[in-house]
Amino acid sequence: MSDDVLAALTAILPRQHLLTDPDTVAPYLHDEAEWAPHGAAVAVARPATTAEVAAIVTACAAHGVPVVTRGAGTGLSGGANAVEGCVVLSTERMRDIVEIDPAERLAVVQPGVVNDDLRAAAAKEGLWYPPDPASAPWSTIGGNVATNAGGLCCVKYGVTRDYVLALEVVLADGEVVRLGRRTAKGVVGYDLAGLMVGSEGTLGVVTEVTVKLRPARTTAPRTVVGFFDTLPAAGDAIARVTAAGLQPAIFELVDRVCLKAVNDWKRAGLPEDAAVLLLAQTDLPEPAAEHEAAQMHAEFLAAGASDALLSTDPVEAEALFDARRLAYPALEQLGMAMLTEDVCLPRGRIAEMLTRIEEIAAHRDVVIATVAHAGDGNLHPLMLTPHGDDAARIRTQAAFDDIVDAAIDLGGTVTGEHGVGLLKRDGALRELGPAVVAMHRAVKAALDPRGILNPGKVIA
Amino acid sequence: MSDDVLAALTAILPRQHLLTDPDTVAPYLHDEAEWAPHGAAVAVARPATTAEVAAIVTACAAHGVPVVTRGAGTGLSGGANAVEGCVVLSTERMRDIVEIDPAERLAVVQPGVVNDDLRAAAAKEGLWYPPDPASAPWSTIGGNVATNAGGLCCVKYGVTRDYVLALEVVLADGEVVRLGRRTAKGVVGYDLAGLMVGSEGTLGVVTEVTVKLRPARTTAPRTVVGFFDTLPAAGDAIARVTAAGLQPAIFELVDRVCLKAVNDWKRAGLPEDAAVLLLAQTDLPEPAAEHEAAQMHAEFLAAGASDALLSTDPVEAEALFDARRLAYPALEQLGMAMLTEDVCLPRGRIAEMLTRIEEIAAHRDVVIATVAHAGDGNLHPLMLTPHGDDAARIRTQAAFDDIVDAAIDLGGTVTGEHGVGLLKRDGALRELGPAVVAMHRAVKAALDPRGILNPGKVIA
Repeated sequence: MSDDVLAALTAILPRQHLLTDPDTVAPYLHDEAEWAPHGAAVAVARPATTAEVAAIVTACAAHGVPVVTRGAGTGLSGGANAVEGCVVLSTERMRDIVEIDPAERLAVVQPGVVNDDLRAAAAKEGLWYPPDPASAPWSTIGGNVATNAGGLCCVKYGVTRDYVLALEVVLADGEVVRLGRRTAKGVVGYDLAGLMVGSEGTLGVVTEVTVKLRPARTTAPRTVVGFFDTLPAAGDAIARVTAAGLQPAIFELVDRVCLKAVNDWKRAGLPEDAAVLLLAQTDLPEPAAEHEAAQMHAEFLAAGASDALLSTDPVEAEALFDARRLAYPALEQLGMAMLTEDVCLPRGRIAEMLTRIEEIAAHRDVVIATVAHAGDGNLHPLMLTPHGDDAARIRTQAAFDDIVDAAIDLGGTVTGEHGVGLLKRDGALRELGPAVVAMHRAVKAALDPRGILNPGKVIA
Repeated sequence: MSDDVLAALTAILPRQHLLTDPDTVAPYLHDEAEWAPHGAAVAVARPATTAEVAAIVTACAAHGVPVVTRGAGTGLSGGANAVEGCVVLSTERMRDIVEIDPAERLAVVQPGVVNDDLRAAAAKEGLWYPPDPASAPWSTIGGNVATNAGGLCCVKYGVTRDYVLALEVVLADGEVVRLGRRTAKGVVGYDLAGLMVGSEGTLGVVTEVTVKLRPARTTAPRTVVGFFDTLPAAGDAIARVTAAGLQPAIFELVDRVCLKAVNDWKRAGLPEDAAVLLLAQTDLPEPAAEHEAAQMHAEFLAAGASDALLSTDPVEAEALFDARRLAYPALEQLGMAMLTEDVCLPRGRIAEMLTRIEEIAAHRDVVIATVAHAGDGNLHPLMLTPHGDDAARIRTQAAFDDIVDAAIDLGGTVTGEHGVGLLKRDGALRELGPAVVAMHRAVKAALDPRGILNPGKVIA
């Protein structure tokens, strides 16, 4: 079977774009999800065109070989991990920005275009593509579509799905379809483009993406930070900002473990007795921004911030945001395995969830550092484990499951923006329940009856 | 069969909520789509609870009887029209606003809640539900969800789908499921809640809707109007506003036929030599609103407006908007049958489409009055036909098809916000093409294998 499909692929792709050497193939077999399993691939196919993708999927379908599509491999749930005997379809050569249309405020790109490259191309036209996952310098639009990626700006400006107007997709039988539209609105038929977003390559292979763009922002943001000695005080600050009708463009949280790591690495002088640092930005036009920033500052103080600062100076604002930006790199300096969580809670339950995470860390004897998109309740507890320590790994994986259970218990969801992949499959089953899981299986079977496309992901 | 299902329904609903008298049933058999066909119903069922809806659908499924769900019946595509031998399920008694949660900025409502009632309840909490179809005083949230309704504000604030967080749905076999989430973000599994939005009751019966709310707007809007003697000049003004990076909260178009009708009815003194009136509002905080309004005014003049006005006075602004608000009522005074179109074009093709509409009106000898959501390219040409004139009706229906074809030809879509229903089924087949239609049929068969939910709508 694998020889047959290889022969078919050889007729489709130039030799240098059909990888079979194990050392060359190895980096394509998994994403960045710690300890997520993966199988061996028959080959890695690197098509450059929709026609090549269609031919590859057709060949795989004919031979009953699974197709696992991947972008840059920056995923954190194992969604792009190879399944045994699959062909890995890498979109890395599909990097054309096909079109930026300022009159219609849209862009058309191939799936392998890197998020930051789209943002830079849009900026040249005075336009802005808001979704900004932390992986934006490396991750691809196709991968962002596959996981419905979020980021810092989505608290005010929405996630990837909110920007996808149309998709070109290769279906499980190799047929090429266009879903969605180029117009600002449209309701013809079911929202199949929206269905594809977040489906992790299990319903089709995205070969072109049309996204909405917004006018570029022209005002310098104002930054507000607050240090809080207790989790409830920080939770109160988040609730007060929401209740006051404020709409920060960024609203982030960094916990004490992160603050200490940044201090240890960069001598940043951040107060380590604070339980939580909240960082917010407003991007309203002036003087509304000044007013909104002052209101956030006042709410932080009213909630009991031990310290709160306002800044308009971009350099100072950058420095304040370093605590957020440097948290992950600082934790990486510790040289430990890092397992990232992605639960999303109702805003009013954030403090309670943070307390649960502290309890879980203590109970499971695991170091957990948390950053969060506070404004939309999306928490990223990061579990740190010594490499090669199996007992610690098992405790960490138990803590991971505990956090998932706590999120469901508090009315949250098991994944806010990273996707189900492999790591959240059990959690997804628990959250969705059997009837909704059955709907998923029915939709999957309807669009991929032979189960060729990224089998076993999202719903096992 | 109809006796059997009636017996079953009698056991579910009190007698006064199971209508069978033909005169009582008649108003439930169709929506407001002119000349859209409808069949006779076995009964009209008026459940008050999810459990009753589930029992009704279960009974209908057991007897192979179609279920056609309807809200207020204000639809314009025939989506809620009875099919022969169906049970019409009216949500009119499901009017509870279950919850408004200011901390999470969301509302939970039954599907029969009227759009304006939700908006009023949200306003009491300092919150705002933006989707504002022209039917907002009568149409229900369930109907808005079924058609993915838009409105004036969606040019800046998005359509119904952008606000639906979660749905409770009764599936084709009577099972009750919850889709979506209460959190601000979430990517667990496929976006089945989004799939339900706009599916016109063909995939499930929505029994509860959870929507996002925004903070209420506090600034008085500034209004800009421009009169244009030619369609290309108006098209240029729309393009210039977009190219300048402006984001009006409302951006509407009224054509000369509407202006004359409003003048004839209200002696409004609008200039009848203008081909088009453009109306825009900005809702930015001051002084950004003043600046944006001045920019729009300047772009209108640069595009060749014969007259352009700026207003901050709410009374004066209301008067200026009367030309838009009164257009339909004024046309109704003419006492003719009214068939409404709903095509949506790329913004850059609006002038060309308006020219095509004028040509079609002349060629088919039909009076066509056009209002449009100019900012998102959504045109509502309204065809006026003397009642009882069969030849005129046939010419009008031909003009309807011509407009649909022209929209597809210019890269648009056949329905921007009214839905496919019955009137746009042929157009949808032409726009989507056989492969995407096959995907629709596969999804429909997966979720409603016996085809009992609003059969024949969206995709025949």
